[in-house]
Amino acid sequence: MTTGVGDGESVSLDLLRQKMADFAKERDWDKFHSPRNLLLALVGEVGELSEIFQWKGEVPKGLPDWKEEEKIHLGEELSDVLLYLVRLSDICGIDLGKAALRKVELNAIKYPATACTNGSSNKQPTPN
Amino acid sequence: MTTGVGDGESVSLDLLRQKMADFAKERDWDKFHSPRNLLLALVGEVGELSEIFQWKGEVPKGLPDWKEEEKIHLGEELSDVLLYLVRLSDICGIDLGKAALRKVELNAIKYPATACTNGSSNKQPTPN
Amino acid sequence: MTTGVGDGESVSLDLLRQKMADFAKERDWDKFHSPRNLLLALVGEVGELSEIFQWKGEVPKGLPDWKEEEKIHLGEELSDVLLYLVRLSDICGIDLGKAALRKVELNAIKYPATACTNGSSNKQPTPN
Amino acid sequence: MTTGVGDGESVSLDLLRQKMADFAKERDWDKFHSPRNLLLALVGEVGELSEIFQWKGEVPKGLPDWKEEEKIHLGEELSDVLLYLVRLSDICGIDLGKAALRKVELNAIKYPATACTNGSSNKQPTPN
Repeated sequence: MTTGVGDGESVSLDLLRQKMADFAKERDWDKFHSPRNLLLALVGEVGELSEIFQWKGEVPKGLPDWKEEEKIHLGEELSDVLLYLVRLSDICGIDLGKAALRKVELNAIKYPATACTNGSSNKQPTPN
Repeated sequence: MTTGVGDGESVSLDLLRQKMADFAKERDWDKFHSPRNLLLALVGEVGELSEIFQWKGEVPKGLPDWKEEEKIHLGEELSDVLLYLVRLSDICGIDLGKAALRKVELNAIKYPATACTNGSSNKQPTPN
Repeated sequence: MTTGVGDGESVSLDLLRQKMADFAKERDWDKFHSPRNLLLALVGEVGELSEIFQWKGEVPKGLPDWKEEEKIHLGEELSDVLLYLVRLSDICGIDLGKAALRKVELNAIKYPATACTNGSSNKQPTPN
Repeated sequence: MTTGVGDGESVSLDLLRQKMADFAKERDWDKFHSPRNLLLALVGEVGELSEIFQWKGEVPKGLPDWKEEEKIHLGEELSDVLLYLVRLSDICGIDLGKAALRKVELNAIKYPATACTNGSSNKQPTPN
């Protein structure tokens, strides 16, 4: 794929942020991209993501029984959520990558590894 | 892989994916991280994100009137959505960064820049 | 409309519950209607509801500028959310009407009318 | 209108609509209840509903293993979604009960009972 990212090179949040900003500017869409418009667009995409899973019952990791076209569709819906999330963050002036790294560190403090693996914890198993 | 990210260095989706995988493994949480569990956790975080905006009416770009603590809180909720999205993608075997770049290209085909800027389009202004 | 509800007579949650149960039974869909399947279907419909509002900016009460067909579409999406909510409640064994009346009473205790109208409250303006 | 609902009497959408309208008026909350504010509040409640189910894996109908307090909590979150949905409909000028009955009829046309029970349909099993 010749998208400016070589094989094995990882896609950064900042690259996506820049692509979304260029995309909106080239189409004169900045006027539509207010925080709450983007938030509702994000909710719409989460709805489309949920529709993929809605009638399937429990689904095993790796989706072994899914057709290739279903996986491609899933990748597209996951991407739509991501792209609006990146754009919403940008429009709000939030550095999403920095915030995410910080949140991982906060989660590590909130849920220490040793406290969770002794099997006696009643705490909710993942961060909320 | 070092945990730190230097100034000016961009955070990659793969770094976050690896951090989430390590985080779950260290806490023996892999057993909780089924696709639909993670999807519902994502929906929960989108709900918390929406709560931040729910009584505010329209909000200008850059959030000029928000207190610093509100922006920090917003960054945390945006991050929670991102982290579950990254984890869900990983558990489903989807390369989120590659899928997102591909989706941007598909969007560029679906919404050509020239067709959108002539002011006569009735199409929905952004991808769905 | 000859749906068993006369003009001026109000539609009850129990009527909708019964209609949804009959609908599923007649189509042999009970097997699909597990709690989490229905919950994800509900999330999908909330997404479609959000899409209606996503690019509009703030919208005044009563939707004075909306076309009749837009209002009909809105009514359909609101209904889809309601119908899955009614069905989810039924499948979970929850009496939604009774629960809703109880919740209104709890809200009245949590947010006393006199405490909210003196203009000095910093509390979040509606129940969460 | 009396506040109580006798045993066996069904709760109507119009009763809930009236209660929500009175509730907002008594607290001077009408100013907060714009369509998009209410929609985001609804999304927030759907998030809380999802959190109840997020780490449970598949859940059988009737929730046989749930504690009474969990079911009460579930009833409260289902109610919160319903109450905001009723309020949003009212503020938008939509008769939710009438719209829901109409949608059930449309669904019956879209998914005829005979076409769905012969086991050969590849159509999505419930309306979207």
